[in-house]
Amino acid sequence: MAIRKPETKIGTCNANQILVRDKDLVEDLIGKVGFTDMIYFHILNRMPTPTETKVLDSVLVTLMEHGFTPSAIASRMIAMSDPTAIQSAVAAGILGIAGVFVGTMEGTAQNLYAIIDSEDSVEVAAEKIAKEYRAAKKPIPGFGHPIHIPDDPRSPKLFEVALEAGVDGKYINALKVLSTKVDEAWGRHLTINATGAIGAVLCEIGLPWDIMRGIAVISRAAGLVGHFAEEKESPSGYYIMSAIEEQIPYTGNRQLD
Amino acid sequence: MAIRKPETKIGTCNANQILVRDKDLVEDLIGKVGFTDMIYFHILNRMPTPTETKVLDSVLVTLMEHGFTPSAIASRMIAMSDPTAIQSAVAAGILGIAGVFVGTMEGTAQNLYAIIDSEDSVEVAAEKIAKEYRAAKKPIPGFGHPIHIPDDPRSPKLFEVALEAGVDGKYINALKVLSTKVDEAWGRHLTINATGAIGAVLCEIGLPWDIMRGIAVISRAAGLVGHFAEEKESPSGYYIMSAIEEQIPYTGNRQLD
Amino acid sequence: MAIRKPETKIGTCNANQILVRDKDLVEDLIGKVGFTDMIYFHILNRMPTPTETKVLDSVLVTLMEHGFTPSAIASRMIAMSDPTAIQSAVAAGILGIAGVFVGTMEGTAQNLYAIIDSEDSVEVAAEKIAKEYRAAKKPIPGFGHPIHIPDDPRSPKLFEVALEAGVDGKYINALKVLSTKVDEAWGRHLTINATGAIGAVLCEIGLPWDIMRGIAVISRAAGLVGHFAEEKESPSGYYIMSAIEEQIPYTGNRQLD
Amino acid sequence: MAIRKPETKIGTCNANQILVRDKDLVEDLIGKVGFTDMIYFHILNRMPTPTETKVLDSVLVTLMEHGFTPSAIASRMIAMSDPTAIQSAVAAGILGIAGVFVGTMEGTAQNLYAIIDSEDSVEVAAEKIAKEYRAAKKPIPGFGHPIHIPDDPRSPKLFEVALEAGVDGKYINALKVLSTKVDEAWGRHLTINATGAIGAVLCEIGLPWDIMRGIAVISRAAGLVGHFAEEKESPSGYYIMSAIEEQIPYTGNRQLD
Repeated sequence: MAIRKPETKIGTCNANQILVRDKDLVEDLIGKVGFTDMIYFHILNRMPTPTETKVLDSVLVTLMEHGFTPSAIASRMIAMSDPTAIQSAVAAGILGIAGVFVGTMEGTAQNLYAIIDSEDSVEVAAEKIAKEYRAAKKPIPGFGHPIHIPDDPRSPKLFEVALEAGVDGKYINALKVLSTKVDEAWGRHLTINATGAIGAVLCEIGLPWDIMRGIAVISRAAGLVGHFAEEKESPSGYYIMSAIEEQIPYTGNRQLD
Repeated sequence: MAIRKPETKIGTCNANQILVRDKDLVEDLIGKVGFTDMIYFHILNRMPTPTETKVLDSVLVTLMEHGFTPSAIASRMIAMSDPTAIQSAVAAGILGIAGVFVGTMEGTAQNLYAIIDSEDSVEVAAEKIAKEYRAAKKPIPGFGHPIHIPDDPRSPKLFEVALEAGVDGKYINALKVLSTKVDEAWGRHLTINATGAIGAVLCEIGLPWDIMRGIAVISRAAGLVGHFAEEKESPSGYYIMSAIEEQIPYTGNRQLD
Repeated sequence: MAIRKPETKIGTCNANQILVRDKDLVEDLIGKVGFTDMIYFHILNRMPTPTETKVLDSVLVTLMEHGFTPSAIASRMIAMSDPTAIQSAVAAGILGIAGVFVGTMEGTAQNLYAIIDSEDSVEVAAEKIAKEYRAAKKPIPGFGHPIHIPDDPRSPKLFEVALEAGVDGKYINALKVLSTKVDEAWGRHLTINATGAIGAVLCEIGLPWDIMRGIAVISRAAGLVGHFAEEKESPSGYYIMSAIEEQIPYTGNRQLD
Repeated sequence: MAIRKPETKIGTCNANQILVRDKDLVEDLIGKVGFTDMIYFHILNRMPTPTETKVLDSVLVTLMEHGFTPSAIASRMIAMSDPTAIQSAVAAGILGIAGVFVGTMEGTAQNLYAIIDSEDSVEVAAEKIAKEYRAAKKPIPGFGHPIHIPDDPRSPKLFEVALEAGVDGKYINALKVLSTKVDEAWGRHLTINATGAIGAVLCEIGLPWDIMRGIAVISRAAGLVGHFAEEKESPSGYYIMSAIEEQIPYTGNRQLD
């Protein structure tokens, strides 16, 4: 197999200068742009507009912290086992940012891109998608929440912030139309959940769906550093370990002598 | 062993409301604070001043991207092996944020906290530390760089940004004094490198030394998402694999038939 | 959501005794069974026959070491960055045991289980599968190899060892029939590769397809410990880092001053 | 910095042949050696004697499974979040094989190597070490156990298996002498725990102390595949998540409206 010679546009440096994506790190970036700008700039290879920064900030703030999630528990278990290695605790936790809990962001975005790119009207395209999922008895990504019933309070806020910041609004609109069709197809109200809303607003600022999970990874990495810090001050690890050991009964056939 | 019942101050929620560290996520945070503010707030449990945000932004921007580092290569190898799992690629890469490459940030901060907390004058305390490392023939964290000779251009910029943003400056000053003593002890000029400067400015904004590595983890997580995005567009994985296979000779005693 | 109360059959202990899956660790296992037996026993919850142990040994030996694979390179990069943390180096590497390189083992097993469970004859079922993949222009798992042309030498050996050890042979046979149909459908010879053969022999000893990747993970964990040991004695990390940095050209629009 | 050109003795291959550490994988290894032999061979670059295989087997069997440890809980949390990725679940779990729980194996081995290499008699060298730890009020690695009181039943079994298999016994003896001195220094009986005993028997078969953690990583990787398999059949993840959420009280100053 002939392997195409690779190249990079990410950066280069010499003794006096560091370039990152065609900008001078020292002259153009440090002290001039914020971290959120830099994230957008590095991933999409162009500096964001203030609208885009505002939306990305709102998403990163929303995703950071969700309490004792499976990721946070995994991370705390590793923090307890290796209290000097923040990187190990964070790595363990972010491995949980996958299909079950965050995949819905990507799935929502795929559906919204499909609706907008469809030759059908938004109404028709959205209705087709809702009916397809329902017929297949599959959960539709971006809808429903076990706790936030009837409605997830984060979703309207994310739409409001994005629209006030100046996004076009067509993906938000498509999600709202889809929401109506979902309620019809299911015969009851399913909330647009936060990952659904995030999928829509990230579409508004041009994130490809297959990179969106990366935004969750960055934000949760910060959340997990917060858990690491709390675990140092107020440890929960030994409690979790012994509680679980005690609460999950051993049901083997042979008992201890 | 009696295990102290744990508690958490991170957050809680019900159907309508989500609290994160005593703030209402929807009312007080989304759309109101930036990601950098939120990172500081979550880790240190208090909202940063504009000075603190500015400094943390400058650090996060500085650390994000360093080209084909060991972390980035590890991450690209996993991206190539599992192109659907950004989280795995990022997790593999951040495991490299450890003693060899980033530990110097923590080591610098520990030395600076020791100098400031010492009963000796800054001059005397700094001189003692420089001489101790030199006598033990150990590299002193925060000094020297293989490429940026004679001086790392990022360090004065980080000091400038922090001082203009309004930090007190005592840790920056301590690092500069330490630098003079290091040059004396070594008999030649060693630059204050970027991780050294970062150690100092993070001390200025109140980060404990044992959490600092977490800041690098967050920033590099973003950098690695950028590498993942480039790997999708312009793959380097197969090239790296075959180049390494070819360039590292097999020197076993037995040869292929 | 009502959550079913979990239970575990894995083990329990008190001050004097440790039970693992209904056996006394000290009395029944340590010194009495080998590691390979214990792996099978723990995963499948029954002690293997000598045939099953022999086959599992042959698979674990085959998978352990493949030189500077992407996993091994990732692992070496982390070993270099954190030379005290074998666990981090191994964790980074095993994240690469995913769809691209090892998924073919699972795919092969799924196809073989489908052929054997089909109402069609093996011939007919195999032909259908081969034609489906070909029509969809998809690579068929378990066939083809970039280096081992025309044939992968490991595959016949794995079949031979398994058959001599006493397996029934129906999955091996199904794979051979499938191989004929693949060659017909593609119009040229594609070798049964090692992961294909492994898929077949693991079917012979009762491994469910969705656990097979775990066998690769265990075996490669051992391989990566070997790489870690070599990296200590004869480091390659700095070379890899600087070779890659040098060989992947920066092609941004802006050049260094 | 001039970088030494690296080399590898691990292996090489061409179309027809695969060499691993000077042996032909197909002719000399598959079907001829067991997995445990192969682990020893790959890490230490020489084929083990039957004595060495027996001892390594006993260690790998002992370490594999310990119930709902922090590693296992972390692994189950990731298995629940990403049920298709065994490698992620295992990687998360093995990040917990670090100082707190397994470091004692290495610490024991370092102490035993120091005793044997000392110019003092075993008695004197052991006494010095015991007194040093005690004076520094530090726990001495390899001694004490929270559950197995007064004695860990695995340790005498590991010694028995190793001695019957034919090891020299000098490290086992040194650990027993050290045990007497520890009891004297502490003024009460501390058991030789399993990781202590494992440290001794791995010294007997020539493992360097800084590779020993790798043996635990391999064995636990297998244990975690067992947990993954049980999690599929009898899920505990949702229970753990909700139990922890419920049992760790939120103690922030602000309460939900």
